[in-house]
Order: sequence, then structure tokens, then C-alpha cells
Amino acid sequence: MTTPFEYALENQDKFLRELTEFLRIPSISAQPHHKEDVRKAAEWAAAHCLSLGMTRAEVMDTDGHPVVYAEWLGAPGKPTVIFYGHYDVQPAELKDGWHTEPFHPVIMDDKIFGRGTADDKGQVFIHLKAFESVMKTTGTFPVNIKILLEGEEEVGSIHLRPFIKSHSELLKGDVGLVSDSGMLAPGLPTIVYGLRGLVELEIYVTGPHHDLHSGAYGGTVDNPNHALSRIVASLHDAQGRIAVSGFADDVRVLSADEHASISHVPFTEEMWYVETGAPAIWGDPDFTLKERTGARPTIEVNGLFGGYTGDGSKTIIPAKATAKITCRLVPNQNPQKVFEAIQRHVAAHTPPTVHSEVSFKRGEPGLVVDPNDPAMQVAVEAYQHSFGKAPIFTLEGGSIPAVMMMRESLGIPVILMGFGLPDDNLHAPNEKFSLEQFRLGIQTAIEFYRLLPEHQK
Amino acid sequence: MTTPFEYALENQDKFLRELTEFLRIPSISAQPHHKEDVRKAAEWAAAHCLSLGMTRAEVMDTDGHPVVYAEWLGAPGKPTVIFYGHYDVQPAELKDGWHTEPFHPVIMDDKIFGRGTADDKGQVFIHLKAFESVMKTTGTFPVNIKILLEGEEEVGSIHLRPFIKSHSELLKGDVGLVSDSGMLAPGLPTIVYGLRGLVELEIYVTGPHHDLHSGAYGGTVDNPNHALSRIVASLHDAQGRIAVSGFADDVRVLSADEHASISHVPFTEEMWYVETGAPAIWGDPDFTLKERTGARPTIEVNGLFGGYTGDGSKTIIPAKATAKITCRLVPNQNPQKVFEAIQRHVAAHTPPTVHSEVSFKRGEPGLVVDPNDPAMQVAVEAYQHSFGKAPIFTLEGGSIPAVMMMRESLGIPVILMGFGLPDDNLHAPNEKFSLEQFRLGIQTAIEFYRLLPEHQK
Repeated sequence: MTTPFEYALENQDKFLRELTEFLRIPSISAQPHHKEDVRKAAEWAAAHCLSLGMTRAEVMDTDGHPVVYAEWLGAPGKPTVIFYGHYDVQPAELKDGWHTEPFHPVIMDDKIFGRGTADDKGQVFIHLKAFESVMKTTGTFPVNIKILLEGEEEVGSIHLRPFIKSHSELLKGDVGLVSDSGMLAPGLPTIVYGLRGLVELEIYVTGPHHDLHSGAYGGTVDNPNHALSRIVASLHDAQGRIAVSGFADDVRVLSADEHASISHVPFTEEMWYVETGAPAIWGDPDFTLKERTGARPTIEVNGLFGGYTGDGSKTIIPAKATAKITCRLVPNQNPQKVFEAIQRHVAAHTPPTVHSEVSFKRGEPGLVVDPNDPAMQVAVEAYQHSFGKAPIFTLEGGSIPAVMMMRESLGIPVILMGFGLPDDNLHAPNEKFSLEQFRLGIQTAIEFYRLLPEHQK
Repeated sequence: MTTPFEYALENQDKFLRELTEFLRIPSISAQPHHKEDVRKAAEWAAAHCLSLGMTRAEVMDTDGHPVVYAEWLGAPGKPTVIFYGHYDVQPAELKDGWHTEPFHPVIMDDKIFGRGTADDKGQVFIHLKAFESVMKTTGTFPVNIKILLEGEEEVGSIHLRPFIKSHSELLKGDVGLVSDSGMLAPGLPTIVYGLRGLVELEIYVTGPHHDLHSGAYGGTVDNPNHALSRIVASLHDAQGRIAVSGFADDVRVLSADEHASISHVPFTEEMWYVETGAPAIWGDPDFTLKERTGARPTIEVNGLFGGYTGDGSKTIIPAKATAKITCRLVPNQNPQKVFEAIQRHVAAHTPPTVHSEVSFKRGEPGLVVDPNDPAMQVAVEAYQHSFGKAPIFTLEGGSIPAVMMMRESLGIPVILMGFGLPDDNLHAPNEKFSLEQFRLGIQTAIEFYRLLPEHQK
């Protein structure tokens, strides 16, 4: 008799053909002209869930991109898992430095390259294929499962909270499960027990009421590009510490245990140099490199623009300059308070020669999940089975608003079982997902679903 | 008998229909996709010169956009005027804030609105129409005239110098004449006797070898947007003085006469507020507002960009950030020395956590023309005739590389007879040219050509 995992190995080529179909839909949630593609990806995912034997699968509208909901509830009396993932992806264009077309996935060297391979379509597929493998070989599934796939994870999950709130009956369950994170290194299974929150904001600096001729007005008008640069420069001190008063007031102090645990994370300066390619490590000198990665808040200008950015030159003083900023928050920090601290800082650093405005875009607090929850222990055993070793518990640098919402609105523990690797190039050109991780992920998921009913008695 | 100026008034509608045709060709020299439009404008101008009775008109190739050369040499023994203008224009798009389509000129309120109306197609037309008006009414012209129209003024006149050098015989003449500048106020004729030079450069700051996920690497990687902001912020001190060591070493000290002359320029703080719309005057506190406008060197970041600048957000640390910069130079400053001073400054302000590079794009020194040259006195008389008062002599903030080249390579005095007004929105949305200025300009030009032979004996 074929075991579920044997089925998964035998069907890997079929799984990858299906995944490739899913990846070819450019479901870029940030770009309005891809709106129809986002819906197409949702429809594809819903149809695929039905084809696997789920008993219900729907594309459900929100005020933004739709949510996919699917379920199989054929195990009465057994626990119900709410699996969350997202089918939207980050923007990607060949000219950004991709070696292959971002939406024409290519398999090379036991890896699949393309936008969404690791973040998050490939990881969603781990669970869909675990479900398929168990169903095809045993005719049933050990737990009830509800699949919630979001189309706005990459743009802040703005419409997910009202969706979860208004569907709390539908989404009732015992354990939340998410595969949208990574392992610290190959061979080192990792459970993320803390996630940073996020505040997104934009700073606008305006000066003259329209672009001015730099020959006629230069030297008398404060250039918004210069003024914005002074503001951005003031956000950190010369050593790399955040210099915004009040920003870090509520930052949770790490316990001795956490300091020790972080110090054991197998991340070295050499790895940093290889992964980033940057000339030297930067950042708050009061914390170690490992602590700065995940355990500390950050302010990053993701986009900066003002004036003429086309070919050639245009001798102007621009009317406006913009900084697009996201801040990563650690648990205890309040997004609104952080935003207000920055707003005060910008106002204090705006000279009378220009105007500035700080616009709030979105905010989610950070989160810590209790590592001692029984469902966490099921995950530990599942990893032990597939990887041959117990997972390490870590704080993650990224933010998954949905995890916070699931915990808040549904009141259930959420397990972050991620199979990405540090060099997967998330949000960057040449995103990839290791097929070894894909196979191990399916094996871990099969085991997790198998073991869960025993622990949840 | 109709006088030349009466002819000009009677034919204003015809002149404006012709000018509109010329303005509708989007001859944007900075944008490669408008290359054919630039040539089309050159061909239109050459054909128009022939239609006015010029005896030769050609589109002549350079390594960049072509030059238009036209001539009428029917006055042997009389002086030869080399008239310079440009038929290329600055970029313009409706979305930049234009109230009308930039390349569909509209006449309203005795003004013509559209890209190129004042800078410089409309001003070139003043001289073509002065020529036509004299020819049509008298059958001849009082001086020989050679017309040189450039297609690269807005991108630094890179190929004009070799063209002028290799055509010094063709371009031989007695007086250079340019209408590509402005008057200080309506009713106040102005001759520009000094022009600032220009250095164009770009600063690139690079960090990681590709865009990184800000959740995974934020706090450990120096963000190129932040590092570039620190560099840009360091270019000026908090009061608005240029803080680049060596930048202003060779700046020519203004004479007491010049200080006095500048203090009489009818430019007030109130005018500054109306024209700029900016909240407060900025700049080097060691000089007056009037002195900063034209008599002092400047550094302006015309364009600033790094990272994600599209819709929504992308949580990245960008690999690269760019500042596009032009500096205005006063006479005596050497473009190469100025560039090197900035290069040293940027290197000194680049921390080990990023790389930086400063790229030289082009450079032209500034220039002073002698106000006592006899041809200058002809211009004074011409203005006296048309405006009823003598012109004021002023230093201009802008840069016209061709003027420098004409003086250098052809060794002739160059008269800058400009008819623009301060609110013409050069290089900005809603560029316009006053039709009153157009009429007075034609009258002044007719008179200048008529008087010139008497003074040049």
C-alpha cells in the first residue's frame, strides 16, 4: 500500500505542473491593473481545492481583492484546523534584475524560480498537496480543515479583519496554521513564535506651488528634495539608532532566555555578507546582528522620489518630494503611537521654508505565540519526524497581519510552520523555493495533521 | 505705405497660426522616443525660413539632434548678425499639472499657453517675424542674417560646440543675438550681461546587491535611500549656505557697482511669494534675495529616486538610490573643479556601509558680456524705441551654453535680448508667452536690425 508521503514523492512532477499554472497568474495585489489577475488566481485556487476533494470552495468578495474559502469537514469530533495562506504576490518585472521571467516559473537545480514560489503560493501548495496525498491514499483526512486564502497579504490585509469578524462562525476552529515564513537555515526546522507588526506611512514635503526653473529660483527656494533628505537623514543617528523620540517607548525588553535563544540562531556575519552583498553591517550598536534581525523595531524608506526621474535632465526645483516608509514593530508597540511619534518628529524637523505632511496608510501590532501550547508540541513532533530534529523557536522580522487577526478574532493558537530558506529572495528578483523544502514541507504537514487529534483530546 | 511693424500687427493672427503649428511638434530633446519629433521640428523651422525669403535653410546633422542653419546675405558691406535660438523644449505632460494640453497651444487673455511658447520657439518666432515684416514691406533687409537653431539646448548643448568649431567659416559674423531670456518685469526691458554656467552630475548610492525584504534585513543593512538622504542633506548647512568645501573657491566677487545695480532690480519679496507659492524664502543668509537670484552659485537636486515608487507599498530595502543634480556656476568657476569638489564631498560623506559614485554629465562655465560694446548700445536704443525706456542690465540665473560657445569660438559680442516674463513658467507646467511681449519683441527686433548698420561703421 502506498503511504501518503510515497504518493507525494511519486506525484511531484504533477504537483509542480499544477503549481506552475498557479504561479503563472500575475496576482500582484499592489497594482490596480492586475486586479483581474488577482481574481483569476483566486478562482484557480478555489477550483483546485474542489478538484482535491474538498467539499466546498468559494471565491468570497471583500471591499478589496477576494478571499478564497474552502473546507473539508468529514471528521466530526476531531479538531478543526484553520489553514491561512495568501495567493497574492509582490510586484515583479524582468528589468528589476530577474534572470528568468518572474511569471514563467523555471525549475533548475532542484529549485523552482518565479514570483510567489516561496511567498506564498508554493507554501500554500504544501498543504493542499498534503491534503491530496492523504485523501488519495486513505480516502479520508484525520482532521477537519478550513482553508482561508487571502489576496491582500502583500498590501497590508486591509479587508481581512472585517472579513474574519463577519465570518467568525464560518471560521470557527481549534488551531490556526500558517506556512508563510522561513527556516533559519537548510536542515534547521524553525517555528516562529513572534512576529513584528507594521506601520506604513508616507511623508510628503511640498514647497513651491509648481515645479520652478532652477536657474531662476535656485538659491532662494528650499528644494523639497533637500528638505525631505534632511528629514529622512534625521530618522536615525550616525550610528544607526532610531532617533525618533517616543518611537521605542513601549518596546518589550527581551528576557535572558530570549537573549540566549537568539544568540543560538545559526546566523553569522559571513551569511549576512553573502545574502546581502552590502559592503558593511549597519544598525543599532546596542544590539547584536541577530537581535537586530527580528527582535528590534525598524524604520525603512522603501521608496523615495521627487522631481524629474526620467532620461536626461530637467533643471527644476520640484514642487513635491515623497518618502514611502514602513516601520517594523516588536510586540507591545502600538501602531498608532508609533505613527504619532514619527508625525511629531517630522513636524519638528520641517523648517518654515517647506510644508510637510505625514499620511497614515496602515498599522498592525506585533505578536508573540506561546511556545508551550499543545498544538506547538504537535508541530515539534511533526518536524522531528520529517527533519530528524526538533525545531528551533525564533522571532521573525516580517509581519503577517492575518496571524494577529486570527488570534484576536478567533481566539485560537496559531502555528507558524514555515519552509522558506534565507536565500529565497522574498520581495526581490529571482524569488525561488527549494523543492527539497517542498517535499519536507509536505511530509511535515502530513505528520502534523496525523498527530493533531491525539494531542487535542 | 505699410511700415514693418504695422505689417506685424496686421498679421498677428497669421503669425500665431504658424507658431501654433511649430509648437504642436513635441520636440523634447531629453526623451529618446521623441527623437523623430525633434527632427520634424527642425525640418518645419528650415522650411519656414525658406518661405520667408531666406536664401538658404538646411537641417544639418550632428552626433545628436540636428542644427537648423538659415541665411539671408543680401546686404553686402553691412554687418552680419548671427541669431541663435533653440527649437527643442523641456519635457511636459498633462499630469504634471497643466491646465491645457502642453502641445496643443491655447490663446487666452492675450497670452499663448503651451510648452515652448516662451522657451524658446515663441522668442525665435519674434526674429523670424521681424525678418518677414521688413522683407514684405521694404523688399530687403538692413543687415545680413544667419540663423542658428539648436535642438539640444535643454539637454546641455553637447554637440553644438563641435558644430560651431567645424563651421566657423559658415558662422562668421559681427554680432551674436539671442532671445532666450526674460525681462525682470512687464514694462521693464532687460539686457542680460552675465549668465551662470552649469554642471550636471548624478550621485548613485548602492548597498545590497539586490532589493532586500525589509522584514528580514531591516535594521542591519544601511538603506541606500537613507544614505543618499544623508549625503543630500550635507550639501547645504542649516542656514542654506553651500557646505561643499572648495565649491565656491573661484567665485567672482561682485563689484560695488554690481551690488548697487542688483539692489535696483525691481524684484521684491512679495513677488517671490506670488511667483513661487513657497511658504518662506530660503538660502544663503550672507547675500540678499536679489543677489542669490543669478549672482550666486547653486546646487539643486532636480530629481531624487530610490526603491519602490509605484502604487501601494513594497517592503524592501532598495539596492540603489539616485540623485540627479545640476549646479549653477557664476563667472570664474571651473565646471571640472566644481565637479571634483562635489565628488570629494560625497566620498567624505559616504559611510563604509554603502558605496557611492558621482558621475559627470556635462559642464559649461558662466559668462559676462561687456555692457559697453557698441552693439549693446544699439540694443539700448531699440528698446528705447519700442518700450519707451532704456533697458536695465542684469545677471541671469539660467545658463545658455551656446552663448559661451559663440563668444569663445566666434569671438563676437553676444546680445541677450529676452522678452520672457517672470511668470512664464519656464520648465514648468502651464508655460506661456505674453502676446504683448511678442508684439513689443518684434518691434524691438525690427528697430535693432534697422539701427545696427549705423553703429557698426
